[in-house]
Amino acid sequence: MDTILSRIKSPADVKALSMPQLTQLAEEIRERLIQGVAKTGGHIGPNLGVVELTIAMHYVFDTPTDSFIFDVSHQAYVHKLLTGREHLFDTIRQPGGLNGFMLRTESEHDSYGAGHAGTALSAALGMAVARDMSGGSEHIVALAGDAAFTNGISFEALNNIAAQTKRLIIVLNDNEWSIDKNVGAIAEYFHKIVMNSTYNSLHDKAVEFVEMIGGKAARHVAKKAEEAAKGLVGRGMIFEEFGISYFGPIDGHNLPNLIETFKFLKTQNKPVVLHAITQKGRGFQPAIEGQKKFHGLGPYHPETGETKPAVQKTYSEIFAETLTKLATGNDKVVAITAAMPNGTALDLFRPVHPTRYFDVGIAEEHAVLFAAGMATKGYKPFCAIYSTFLQRAFDQIVHDVALQNLPVVFCMDRGGLSGDDGPTHHGLFDISYLRSVPNLIHMVPKDEDELADMMYTAMLHEGPSAIRYPRGTGPGVAVKDQPAVLEIGKAEVISGKPGAEVVIFGLGAMLAEAERLAQMLKAQGFSVAVINPRFAKPIDKDCVDTFGAACELVVTFEDHVLAGGFGSAILETLNALRIDIPVVRVGWPDEFIEHGKVESLREKYGLTAEAALENCKGALEEILEWRGR
Amino acid sequence: MDTILSRIKSPADVKALSMPQLTQLAEEIRERLIQGVAKTGGHIGPNLGVVELTIAMHYVFDTPTDSFIFDVSHQAYVHKLLTGREHLFDTIRQPGGLNGFMLRTESEHDSYGAGHAGTALSAALGMAVARDMSGGSEHIVALAGDAAFTNGISFEALNNIAAQTKRLIIVLNDNEWSIDKNVGAIAEYFHKIVMNSTYNSLHDKAVEFVEMIGGKAARHVAKKAEEAAKGLVGRGMIFEEFGISYFGPIDGHNLPNLIETFKFLKTQNKPVVLHAITQKGRGFQPAIEGQKKFHGLGPYHPETGETKPAVQKTYSEIFAETLTKLATGNDKVVAITAAMPNGTALDLFRPVHPTRYFDVGIAEEHAVLFAAGMATKGYKPFCAIYSTFLQRAFDQIVHDVALQNLPVVFCMDRGGLSGDDGPTHHGLFDISYLRSVPNLIHMVPKDEDELADMMYTAMLHEGPSAIRYPRGTGPGVAVKDQPAVLEIGKAEVISGKPGAEVVIFGLGAMLAEAERLAQMLKAQGFSVAVINPRFAKPIDKDCVDTFGAACELVVTFEDHVLAGGFGSAILETLNALRIDIPVVRVGWPDEFIEHGKVESLREKYGLTAEAALENCKGALEEILEWRGR
Repeated sequence: MDTILSRIKSPADVKALSMPQLTQLAEEIRERLIQGVAKTGGHIGPNLGVVELTIAMHYVFDTPTDSFIFDVSHQAYVHKLLTGREHLFDTIRQPGGLNGFMLRTESEHDSYGAGHAGTALSAALGMAVARDMSGGSEHIVALAGDAAFTNGISFEALNNIAAQTKRLIIVLNDNEWSIDKNVGAIAEYFHKIVMNSTYNSLHDKAVEFVEMIGGKAARHVAKKAEEAAKGLVGRGMIFEEFGISYFGPIDGHNLPNLIETFKFLKTQNKPVVLHAITQKGRGFQPAIEGQKKFHGLGPYHPETGETKPAVQKTYSEIFAETLTKLATGNDKVVAITAAMPNGTALDLFRPVHPTRYFDVGIAEEHAVLFAAGMATKGYKPFCAIYSTFLQRAFDQIVHDVALQNLPVVFCMDRGGLSGDDGPTHHGLFDISYLRSVPNLIHMVPKDEDELADMMYTAMLHEGPSAIRYPRGTGPGVAVKDQPAVLEIGKAEVISGKPGAEVVIFGLGAMLAEAERLAQMLKAQGFSVAVINPRFAKPIDKDCVDTFGAACELVVTFEDHVLAGGFGSAILETLNALRIDIPVVRVGWPDEFIEHGKVESLREKYGLTAEAALENCKGALEEILEWRGR
Repeated sequence: MDTILSRIKSPADVKALSMPQLTQLAEEIRERLIQGVAKTGGHIGPNLGVVELTIAMHYVFDTPTDSFIFDVSHQAYVHKLLTGREHLFDTIRQPGGLNGFMLRTESEHDSYGAGHAGTALSAALGMAVARDMSGGSEHIVALAGDAAFTNGISFEALNNIAAQTKRLIIVLNDNEWSIDKNVGAIAEYFHKIVMNSTYNSLHDKAVEFVEMIGGKAARHVAKKAEEAAKGLVGRGMIFEEFGISYFGPIDGHNLPNLIETFKFLKTQNKPVVLHAITQKGRGFQPAIEGQKKFHGLGPYHPETGETKPAVQKTYSEIFAETLTKLATGNDKVVAITAAMPNGTALDLFRPVHPTRYFDVGIAEEHAVLFAAGMATKGYKPFCAIYSTFLQRAFDQIVHDVALQNLPVVFCMDRGGLSGDDGPTHHGLFDISYLRSVPNLIHMVPKDEDELADMMYTAMLHEGPSAIRYPRGTGPGVAVKDQPAVLEIGKAEVISGKPGAEVVIFGLGAMLAEAERLAQMLKAQGFSVAVINPRFAKPIDKDCVDTFGAACELVVTFEDHVLAGGFGSAILETLNALRIDIPVVRVGWPDEFIEHGKVESLREKYGLTAEAALENCKGALEEILEWRGR
């Protein structure tokens, strides 16, 4: 179909459009988003909210000369559609297709990649200062949601901006949501600003303001225009205290106003913030009614928004149900999330134990310190934070929790490859960065029931502990009524006996591959033992000793990078035991893994029983040779 | 001598004193601090600034029932003197003596330990919420310097406080300094508040305020008193926007006023912040005149403040001089520090290249993102951040720098055991947490000249890199005029040849021990090779292959934890090469190491050639046996 959108090959084509055409473009983009993401899944809600903002930005600014930095950048779909990637849009988040976030290697228009929140202002300031030093004149525009201001880095950036550059444009995309409804003083603060002017009068005043600055924002009217803009509500004091001029709030869906405003802001010789009010999910009723669900999701029906009913509980749900049960039995158990009640499934915990549920905003560092503080007073905090996001709190884990040996439990959802979200979201480093930390124990369950056992074990353990579990569903094992206490640092023998020729350690979800490999080896006549290590730290030394000393080959499987990971810990243990035998380690290589389906990426990178068998060849031949003697 | 101080066995004894006695106590404490720290070294300046604040806090509150949380807690010496540790004060920072920071295991009055900045408000909120949930009535008092507010975590905490507790007392100890003069908008903001009332009128109004609330801050006068307090300047809006009631500024050295104010704040049923103006180094002229020097230092003359002149340049100084030179030759080189111009020696860089020097405040996360932003625009940022503090920015290193393969250089000062500062400051984890990160290279120089070569190599390298170097001085090798480019991932053979029976890898500063061990082994008739690995990542595979395949024993030395460290990387490399030989790894064990002298701690924990020799015994005997055959 010959649409305006299909003719947009680059931002230059946007600039050539008339206002009615731009308005039509917005409509076409909404339709394209709703229809496209219905098939691929993705962050539909946030993108429907920034259609006009993104069009206006591309109309007024000039990427790739000017730079757009989107916080998290899950709201960059519209940007992708306008920067020559419309024909690839159906591949978004698909294997080999467009990434779901900005990616420097994907387009010259993606000047900065992201996936974690709160980075945009700091990175943008770096670019602005670099531009100033090079004598450049390009514009740096950072777009950040209100949720980004619950993250401390945004404030570290605000603290530095005014002192370090005279030109930086910040767009505060305020929809009052991150993934869940935003929490805390900042959210309330932004809300108050908006409420101080009703939406209608805001609209009227914005029109007045825009009429005043017109297309002709000459220097001599600038001051007056600025005052008018501020007069809209006369707030935004926090930004002003940080030396950043505040403009707004403005209707983030009014294209002509946005365009005029950006033209005006372009002329400012000082750092500015534009407070734009947007509606998440705009134009798609199911997304407006189900803000949380439609933040990011899998495929859905493009009219009704219906999604396939879940057939099996996810690890997240098992986690949340178990924690709810543990909290019922122990009034010292509390749950902490960093703005992820939905992703971690803690929204199942909340209604049952509302006073013991804490959503602290996108503030992983604070979450861990808050937990540490509670732990000093006898509480048992469970911090549910994705493996990749817990990287944010590494220092607090070392310096506050582990050093003081406080009984905080880290429940690391999305431990392992995260699939469609890609490299910013894969949780592939947590064993490496945590197993060097004294006092901390690190557990990985083989199935849902063992996750419950590990949580129960962690609750009773008097020091800090971490549990990682994968995204999505597990093998579907039923959780027993009363969880069992696991012995700290004790592995489970799944099959085989000491003296087996080959010993295979299958950590967590990889136990299935370990068992597949065992079947293959047995079929070839080898004696095999399969171990579920349960603990990435401490490693079960006795088990490694008993099985390792008597075998000819050890194989380790982990859904984690090989460098410093679980297999590395097994090497260290064998080394400490002075057992010198061949070890084949299976895990992710030393590179960032792209997005895609977990199964196919595992195949591509050799995390399968088949690939492991190939790697074992030499050692197996030696076993046969030995036997022959 | 019979002083008041010597009779203080616990805070109860403070409460029994009259006002004149309290004033005398303050004088005695100052004298004790000046004389004591002159011998031990330590954070004299910050502690002289909080003498009255700490006395007043212990006079009004009741630890350990009430909890004091001090940000960084380097300013806890007065607290230690008042909580039964006066007789141990001369042991502070000495081996086996008092720790230089709060330590939960040292005293029940130390409710929360620290060493890194920005943690106090979050931890205090955790305690306050725990108290509320338990129905407790104790007070939680957090004391944080103005510098703590350049760190994002403090804002994450502010965002949560008002929503989560009704009782929390924050003392903002404002002396306009962290270690260096504070930077950014927040520092300016606090400064403006204070300047809005001249010191004299501040004093007068404070007296008026205190007279009004008197000792009798009954409920019915509270509101009026509050208004009076606010009337002092009518600012503090940032705190008010966060829902926290602001009081002040108040003279932080006026004991009677402080006591009355704390008594008043104790009665408040809402979170409050008291803005107290203090003078760092108060009562010790050399510390007032040399704020930066006297933040924390070694022994000094108790009257003149003189310190022993340095006899040799530190690694930090070599770093700063080299960077200054590199920046002179390359205008894309910039230097970034997170409030550590003195510690990193970048204050040597600043005067030469003022426009390319960036102090971003205690904001390691922002520092790394700011660097990443600059790198996207062709700059070559060198981030000088202590190894232990870089833990703060682990996620930004992974998600922003390494994933985007941006050429940022991390110069990790204090890599290895930091000595007197203790476990909060030891830099023992950086190899483990960094070597799992794809794209990143990790270098460790054997001496000063090699540090310069590594910096030059990093400058020319097109991806991210990290260099760690120890606290203090190195072997004293002169830095050559023109640094050399090192081949990435190439080790240096110090002595010996392939075929040597024992191959010893001595990483960085530990090369000296490796060489000592080599001498011992040679004396016993073994053939030995000594390798300077240079790179903890990538490991020189060829070198490991050539030397490893032909030897009988490998020994690795590292000033780092063994778990996941350099020796572990050697194990992984040998494993990948399928070389099965004994490896003896020398490094720090899996526990937090206390403070003390580096040499004696190395001895205690077996990081010496002698201890290594002992560990090699079995393998050496086997070599002799083999020879016999």
